[in-house]
Amino acid sequence: MENQPPVHQREIFFSPADRTGLYKAIFSRRDVRGQFKPDPIPDPVLSRVLLAAHHAPSVGFMQPWDFIIVSDPAIKRSVHEGFLQARSREEKLFQGQRQQLYRSLKLEGIQESPVNICVTCDRSRSGAVVLGRTNDMAMDLYSSVCAVQNLWLAARAEGLGVGWVSIIDPDVLREILKIPKEIIPVAYLCLGYVTSFLEHPELQTARWLPRLPLDELIHGNQWDRKDHPSCSALKEHIQKDRVRAGQGSLLDSILES
Amino acid sequence: MENQPPVHQREIFFSPADRTGLYKAIFSRRDVRGQFKPDPIPDPVLSRVLLAAHHAPSVGFMQPWDFIIVSDPAIKRSVHEGFLQARSREEKLFQGQRQQLYRSLKLEGIQESPVNICVTCDRSRSGAVVLGRTNDMAMDLYSSVCAVQNLWLAARAEGLGVGWVSIIDPDVLREILKIPKEIIPVAYLCLGYVTSFLEHPELQTARWLPRLPLDELIHGNQWDRKDHPSCSALKEHIQKDRVRAGQGSLLDSILES
Repeated sequence: MENQPPVHQREIFFSPADRTGLYKAIFSRRDVRGQFKPDPIPDPVLSRVLLAAHHAPSVGFMQPWDFIIVSDPAIKRSVHEGFLQARSREEKLFQGQRQQLYRSLKLEGIQESPVNICVTCDRSRSGAVVLGRTNDMAMDLYSSVCAVQNLWLAARAEGLGVGWVSIIDPDVLREILKIPKEIIPVAYLCLGYVTSFLEHPELQTARWLPRLPLDELIHGNQWDRKDHPSCSALKEHIQKDRVRAGQGSLLDSILES
Repeated sequence: MENQPPVHQREIFFSPADRTGLYKAIFSRRDVRGQFKPDPIPDPVLSRVLLAAHHAPSVGFMQPWDFIIVSDPAIKRSVHEGFLQARSREEKLFQGQRQQLYRSLKLEGIQESPVNICVTCDRSRSGAVVLGRTNDMAMDLYSSVCAVQNLWLAARAEGLGVGWVSIIDPDVLREILKIPKEIIPVAYLCLGYVTSFLEHPELQTARWLPRLPLDELIHGNQWDRKDHPSCSALKEHIQKDRVRAGQGSLLDSILES
């Protein structure tokens, strides 16, 4: 069979409106735990969100993901019990005020959200040897995570909240969802329409941790060369963006820069 | 210090134009290896792309990422040598026609692209115990991957191509970029303007692997319940989308559905 000649996309550059749409999704996406409404998600909407996930990059084009769509209340209840056990183990790892704050946080919306989705990784999907996975075996897990992030952004653009439940023993999840041993559950997500999206991440508002200044995370050419001249102008620009964003909307300040 | 009252976003639903921008980025994003132009990336553009990465979700809001911005030709040359060694090891793992096809593929644009970015994960950024990481220690690595996917989509919206170089020994990369032992290099990315974006993923066009039908990756409530009635209407919808997309543009068919 002959290879087909490469076909090119018509456009390289996005219109300002299209670019705005993307940045809007990125900056307004939230990890939703407490604002879910029970309204069902129509199939055309869920279908778009899953197609967005399916168009994530994957190592060697192996597309290692599967999607378990959970709507059965009995199964959700079991997952919620798994969460409660894991949370009770985790809270003991924090002390004093920190533990008190932990206990006050709402950390999942498993039963309130109409749809839960488990995103998995089938490590042997395209055979034992995968192009691009032989130096770092985690690459296929990373592909499934890219699918999660695409799903999350598409959901935001559809007005749907998503919360990632990581406080659960993966083996408990595996048992409840009957996931075979060789398949890795990468993410358990809660999806649904919301009463509102919060302006800032909840853990930031609750003073669990602050937003880090991006310019302090930039290194020039090598680690620990944060003062390298090759990145000093870039860092100055990022600092200016931060100051401007502090005075108004992050999105507006970014799009004006 | 008192907690601040929660502030809500003004909008739950996106306008059709904003939604289109997001889907456009998701469906037209490509892993770019061969179409890089040497034109420099202006600081305001690079700054937006990095800010998009920085606004990825992270477990326990730990923001474990750092960004090493590589532009020094000598360092890029060393990384390219590391790639060549890794590729020569990897190609031996394929046989016959498959090996021949592997050899014909262009798999990176390290030296042609003006900027390379190494995205890392600092596992101890917010202390030993991280909210949400105690059941699955990979969660912080997954956060850094979410940052990569945000960066990739923002780059596409700015007309910039991105290629993820996974064919390199992480320890070689660590040595070249002087990354400390406790920091994990998660992704090595090549960024630059391009002569064009390909319509389809290169590994699909080269017949390395086909695009999988999404509806076959959907399970109802539990694994191996692909025929569960709870997901049959959804799967039918996805099949219809696929047939429509086969007749024209994926984006158009999705937005019409």
